[in-house]
Amino acid sequence: MASTTLRHQVYCELDPAAREHRGLSLTNKLLVVLIILASAQAIVETEPTIVAGREELFRSTELMFGLIFSVEYLARLWIAPENPYCSKQRYPRLSYVFTPSALIDLAAILPTLLSMGMTGALFLRFFRVLRIFRLAKLGRMSSAWSDLAAALHSRRYELMLTVMLAGVAILVSSTMLYLAEGGVQPDKFGSIPRSFWWSVVTLTTVGYGDAFPVTALGKVFAGVVAIMGIGLIAIPSGILASAFSETLQRRRQRELERDKKTN
Amino acid sequence: MASTTLRHQVYCELDPAAREHRGLSLTNKLLVVLIILASAQAIVETEPTIVAGREELFRSTELMFGLIFSVEYLARLWIAPENPYCSKQRYPRLSYVFTPSALIDLAAILPTLLSMGMTGALFLRFFRVLRIFRLAKLGRMSSAWSDLAAALHSRRYELMLTVMLAGVAILVSSTMLYLAEGGVQPDKFGSIPRSFWWSVVTLTTVGYGDAFPVTALGKVFAGVVAIMGIGLIAIPSGILASAFSETLQRRRQRELERDKKTN
Amino acid sequence: MASTTLRHQVYCELDPAAREHRGLSLTNKLLVVLIILASAQAIVETEPTIVAGREELFRSTELMFGLIFSVEYLARLWIAPENPYCSKQRYPRLSYVFTPSALIDLAAILPTLLSMGMTGALFLRFFRVLRIFRLAKLGRMSSAWSDLAAALHSRRYELMLTVMLAGVAILVSSTMLYLAEGGVQPDKFGSIPRSFWWSVVTLTTVGYGDAFPVTALGKVFAGVVAIMGIGLIAIPSGILASAFSETLQRRRQRELERDKKTN
Amino acid sequence: MASTTLRHQVYCELDPAAREHRGLSLTNKLLVVLIILASAQAIVETEPTIVAGREELFRSTELMFGLIFSVEYLARLWIAPENPYCSKQRYPRLSYVFTPSALIDLAAILPTLLSMGMTGALFLRFFRVLRIFRLAKLGRMSSAWSDLAAALHSRRYELMLTVMLAGVAILVSSTMLYLAEGGVQPDKFGSIPRSFWWSVVTLTTVGYGDAFPVTALGKVFAGVVAIMGIGLIAIPSGILASAFSETLQRRRQRELERDKKTN
Repeated sequence: MASTTLRHQVYCELDPAAREHRGLSLTNKLLVVLIILASAQAIVETEPTIVAGREELFRSTELMFGLIFSVEYLARLWIAPENPYCSKQRYPRLSYVFTPSALIDLAAILPTLLSMGMTGALFLRFFRVLRIFRLAKLGRMSSAWSDLAAALHSRRYELMLTVMLAGVAILVSSTMLYLAEGGVQPDKFGSIPRSFWWSVVTLTTVGYGDAFPVTALGKVFAGVVAIMGIGLIAIPSGILASAFSETLQRRRQRELERDKKTN
Repeated sequence: MASTTLRHQVYCELDPAAREHRGLSLTNKLLVVLIILASAQAIVETEPTIVAGREELFRSTELMFGLIFSVEYLARLWIAPENPYCSKQRYPRLSYVFTPSALIDLAAILPTLLSMGMTGALFLRFFRVLRIFRLAKLGRMSSAWSDLAAALHSRRYELMLTVMLAGVAILVSSTMLYLAEGGVQPDKFGSIPRSFWWSVVTLTTVGYGDAFPVTALGKVFAGVVAIMGIGLIAIPSGILASAFSETLQRRRQRELERDKKTN
Repeated sequence: MASTTLRHQVYCELDPAAREHRGLSLTNKLLVVLIILASAQAIVETEPTIVAGREELFRSTELMFGLIFSVEYLARLWIAPENPYCSKQRYPRLSYVFTPSALIDLAAILPTLLSMGMTGALFLRFFRVLRIFRLAKLGRMSSAWSDLAAALHSRRYELMLTVMLAGVAILVSSTMLYLAEGGVQPDKFGSIPRSFWWSVVTLTTVGYGDAFPVTALGKVFAGVVAIMGIGLIAIPSGILASAFSETLQRRRQRELERDKKTN
Repeated sequence: MASTTLRHQVYCELDPAAREHRGLSLTNKLLVVLIILASAQAIVETEPTIVAGREELFRSTELMFGLIFSVEYLARLWIAPENPYCSKQRYPRLSYVFTPSALIDLAAILPTLLSMGMTGALFLRFFRVLRIFRLAKLGRMSSAWSDLAAALHSRRYELMLTVMLAGVAILVSSTMLYLAEGGVQPDKFGSIPRSFWWSVVTLTTVGYGDAFPVTALGKVFAGVVAIMGIGLIAIPSGILASAFSETLQRRRQRELERDKKTN
């Protein structure tokens, strides 16, 4: 069956999971470049000083990206039955339409399709930025995510606990500052939820300077909170960094051993 | 004796330490949810823009939480003699009343009891927030605290020393800035205690921007302090993070070995 | 010789190095408390709102501390020949006078002695704050300093290199911001030395907000500097924290082994 | 051949790679001092308040440095054929002229040569600051760079991934804040590229305070971004610090083993 063979060829070209070799096919490499370009365009397009006077240029490139991604979407829909997961379903193409990847792809072409008819749908174009997440499924990034997930999983207990400790630290410090500064700065510390903003900004050491204590008691509380709490916020990232580094080194060792066996 | 048996059953239901299985009993799970809801209500209640126009709703839910926690308090008081620690005392119930858990529980119901008679005791409701600490004794959090305590204990010497070094860093930097900027910005650096605020905000890298040196000498001093002192403040959290991670890994290994022996 | 024996007894009481047992003698414990009190007084004394109306109280406590520390100074001068280091010198007491400890002690009593005659020497009282450094030589702090010194020494090469890298980062970022923002904000970025302040405040992530780029180019430069440079500044404290922790664990192991041998 | 011998002697004196002993020759040590002085002068010269009234002094020292470095440049050009790399090329001196070191050296003397004829070339003097990078090739710094490069190389995969994650974090947080605050603060969050500045300043925890969310939704988004994202930015520097420390310890061990073999 020529049609099936062609479909299978297209499938091998479009789906990284179907390839024997590591790396991406030429079509997918091209698509990665196009997704990056389209994302960059979607980002730049939000800046009025750049768009001003170049509306036509932006509209036509935008239309071009929309058409290319529509063709890609239809192609992927066509090859869905080749996919081992979708082919097991009753309606392979329908089940493909509702996979997260396909939904992101659809969100990326929808704005172009809608804006062809009307002009008010411009804000929908923002969905194109979402498409950058598709990059996450391609090539090297893919193993990065699984490594990060493994690191998160291996330390999930530590991370959960430290996140809970951080939550308690935010709650306690907000309450303290609400009691100390609530009367003097009602717009910033007038309630515990309002004080949350100060707590987060202080415990993460961002310290914008839009909210800070002015009374002596508030400063003493804030000083204690800053010194005690910073450790709490720093612990999760320390744990995560060591777990991530460990996961990657283990993987490298595994790859080295596999290479030895092959030779 | 039926009464004792009922009391023992209630005891097994309410005290996590009395259970054979891991995890919480149904009643305690429900109480955890109620404590979280009551704490959330106490937090939200401090925000006037949310309360405005819903005073009745807040008062009734507040009364409801007060009643439920009062019943719980009386129930825990009733079962106190079942508790191995309290039963050894001369007056088991009186000794229970003065345990930290019971005091927190009492603080959480007092505002409701008092506000039923008069209206001026509203501010007491804040004590309900304290009840969130009761959560700390239940379920998973419990082992988290003991792990954190173990981590703190195993590195208590390092932590004590680095906290002392941090104290010296704050004192020295405050004195330096007081000498350099005291004359120019008397409200911020006019005395060593006033300079403490700047020191803490700088050495923790929060940097609100409400106090900073303006003279050349003050900036040189502050720059040296920032570069030298940040390490000092970062050391304790680095030590704590590694100790915490170590403690948890040791525990996991112990659990794995125990599981092996069981099988 | 009764005099020598008494002197030796006083020496054993005052010099921690002469004691057989660990810990401080009663006299030294009392002196530690007095130094802390005198330092606290010297710190608090700089705050005019606290001193106002209590001038007499502060003057008399100040005089009392001065007298006690003068007696201590003379006592230490008297016992100097008992000290193994000083006794080897030609003039033991003169050589003691020029040890750093004795100079700090002298600096701490000078302001009181001078202010007894005249009133303009009040500012000298600040030297009393210096005395807090004497604490560093007593008790536990003493081993803390040697551990920290050992940690610094074991990683001196890494630390030196990363400090040099941090210096290069500050220089390069200052030059970049001087070129980008020098014309727009001449008071903050008008010269490379002026940009140093911004560099230090940014690379240490303090970020007061008194100096930041406003042009697009300046923001791009600053963003790159912030992301690249923060790692450089964070590396030394990471290295130091692990070295410090290592040094202390080695010492604990040594102590454990020594205890085993003794038993 | 007297000329060649002299040239070889000069070569041994000027090129650190030609020396048998570790460390720098006397001439190179002097040149290091001169480069530091000339760099310091170039830095200080940008500060008008220091230069004012001392124009002649700065011009003459500047001329002196220019002459010395010109002589050095010509000397290095003369000895280029002694260099094993350049001597293999067809035109040894021409190939030397285009090495990065020689280009930096030329950039450092060009401003002096040009400003002798005209006065408008003053701004070129800035290139002298570049010369400080020549220091990087001399002495201890040289091995520092190779150690840092080794550390970067050994963890290049981890670093690349975390930098990508940081990029995604910046992009996602900018888009979130653009959506939440774009309408309220158009000058700061009016487009995704404008929000980048806020993202970088927040995720690096610098937090100048020139851009921060003011709406409730924006604050919630920013709080989540701050807590989640800070870990991402902190991971690379944690990885780099441990890799750098590891590389240096390995080298120290190697040196120790080599010393053992020699003895």
